[in-house]
Amino acid sequence: MTTPKVTVEQVQAAYASLGSGDPAQIAKYWDEHMHWLVPGLHTMAGWYKGRDAFLGFMQKCAELSNNSFQMEQITILTNDEWSTDITHNRGSRAGAAEGETSPYMVLDIHVVHLLRWKDGKVVEGRGAIFGDGTTRFNEFWSQLDSSGNRIPL
Amino acid sequence: MTTPKVTVEQVQAAYASLGSGDPAQIAKYWDEHMHWLVPGLHTMAGWYKGRDAFLGFMQKCAELSNNSFQMEQITILTNDEWSTDITHNRGSRAGAAEGETSPYMVLDIHVVHLLRWKDGKVVEGRGAIFGDGTTRFNEFWSQLDSSGNRIPL
Amino acid sequence: MTTPKVTVEQVQAAYASLGSGDPAQIAKYWDEHMHWLVPGLHTMAGWYKGRDAFLGFMQKCAELSNNSFQMEQITILTNDEWSTDITHNRGSRAGAAEGETSPYMVLDIHVVHLLRWKDGKVVEGRGAIFGDGTTRFNEFWSQLDSSGNRIPL
Amino acid sequence: MTTPKVTVEQVQAAYASLGSGDPAQIAKYWDEHMHWLVPGLHTMAGWYKGRDAFLGFMQKCAELSNNSFQMEQITILTNDEWSTDITHNRGSRAGAAEGETSPYMVLDIHVVHLLRWKDGKVVEGRGAIFGDGTTRFNEFWSQLDSSGNRIPL
Repeated sequence: MTTPKVTVEQVQAAYASLGSGDPAQIAKYWDEHMHWLVPGLHTMAGWYKGRDAFLGFMQKCAELSNNSFQMEQITILTNDEWSTDITHNRGSRAGAAEGETSPYMVLDIHVVHLLRWKDGKVVEGRGAIFGDGTTRFNEFWSQLDSSGNRIPL
Repeated sequence: MTTPKVTVEQVQAAYASLGSGDPAQIAKYWDEHMHWLVPGLHTMAGWYKGRDAFLGFMQKCAELSNNSFQMEQITILTNDEWSTDITHNRGSRAGAAEGETSPYMVLDIHVVHLLRWKDGKVVEGRGAIFGDGTTRFNEFWSQLDSSGNRIPL
Repeated sequence: MTTPKVTVEQVQAAYASLGSGDPAQIAKYWDEHMHWLVPGLHTMAGWYKGRDAFLGFMQKCAELSNNSFQMEQITILTNDEWSTDITHNRGSRAGAAEGETSPYMVLDIHVVHLLRWKDGKVVEGRGAIFGDGTTRFNEFWSQLDSSGNRIPL
Repeated sequence: MTTPKVTVEQVQAAYASLGSGDPAQIAKYWDEHMHWLVPGLHTMAGWYKGRDAFLGFMQKCAELSNNSFQMEQITILTNDEWSTDITHNRGSRAGAAEGETSPYMVLDIHVVHLLRWKDGKVVEGRGAIFGDGTTRFNEFWSQLDSSGNRIPL
């Protein structure tokens, strides 16, 4: 087996660049024409085409969750062309009351991201959710609170 | 049993007023402070509070379906305070290709609306869907097409 | 308007017969060849064809919920051929711990049943659920507990 | 980076052993006390605890799909403790008509499996589905056909 061309360090650096918000750093790891597929059946789901669309999605997630999202890394796997990273994702919707437990307002899921790399950059990414977490994700990104009220998206 | 205070004719007139788009007619049957609950887990679901919010929902449905929605009435039931009407609803999303069959783009469901009346006006309405039509409704009102592309909402 | 041929009393008697478990009483209100459509996407969903199949479904519900189901009647509507009854349904799965709040184990939904009558008997029935109660129903009738463990069906 | 302790060849051999049906081969790669988590909200979902339970799940899948399941391998990734394999899964339910397109009867999804290894054997496995494939999976493993009829599970 040859040395993996994608390294764990690259995957970590790619995610770190997103956290930095520095366009130059982001451009180093995420291809301008990349596509990203958000899993599930909810307002945020589907293909985001182009890095700007992907970053817009990330920004929207941050807004809707009031920057509460935490992705705890469990493991990273790589080979010549792909990487997968497994994470434990937690967050709450902006405006969630302290101690809220409704699945419409708080999220706690285990996730995998599959990234495809070319020339040191991510050209495609797709997420998927373990267990019945997709139902949780669908509820969390909906505009519903636990009483069926519509909250701003 | 007393004569029902809500009549089939009132229910028909209430829906006809919505079709007319005439604010005076609409105000005759739909209370200013009415609430409406759209079933399912999708972008249009949840409580609409106030007649304006309800009419905004109706308008949005018309836009997203390019006015293709057809509600075929099956039966109407009434009593002193409530009415239920059963309909066969069909429509397609704006931009759907001719002959499209994807559940993300075409809808064919059987529905019940439960209306609560007070002083001759609807003060509350709630919809519900028969069979597995809720899955269909969730897909139809999503921003996804059959390939997972995001279409404008 | 003619006097409704289906009466509120008949609807109440039909449900009461199910509670009685008396085959003669049940046969008085539920046609041998009746069909029943359970809403949602879960193990109990779909068409039950024939009164025996319907009663089997009712029996299965009782078992899985350890007879905890309570249907609080909100209103009944009738006309010449149909009835609708609106209920608030609560129950818990057999084996649910005291104070359990997981939607996989406890249920609290508002429901409508639409019954079609012929010659004094129900020949068809269909349920539908208000709000996002269909997601709740799908979780409740699954074989999953709140941790994703498979419990007996 | 050290040489991965889990190899692509091991992952391939583990899946091949399942295909062989040879208990000795299977026991070589799948730990007796392994757990397996099937994603989604449907009759097959949840944790299978113990290799026998996992094999029972595999057998049930084969029965319900009349051995039509095809898993096309896209890529395999490994590291010291884990492997992920990405597959394109297609199949149809037993009894599906030729040319059937209903999502209740035919399946076409992209999937990831995450395996955890210890001493050369899989001790835990979890699946997850890309895009809106979880809705497809929920429909496919239901007892519903495209008309809401209940088919044997």
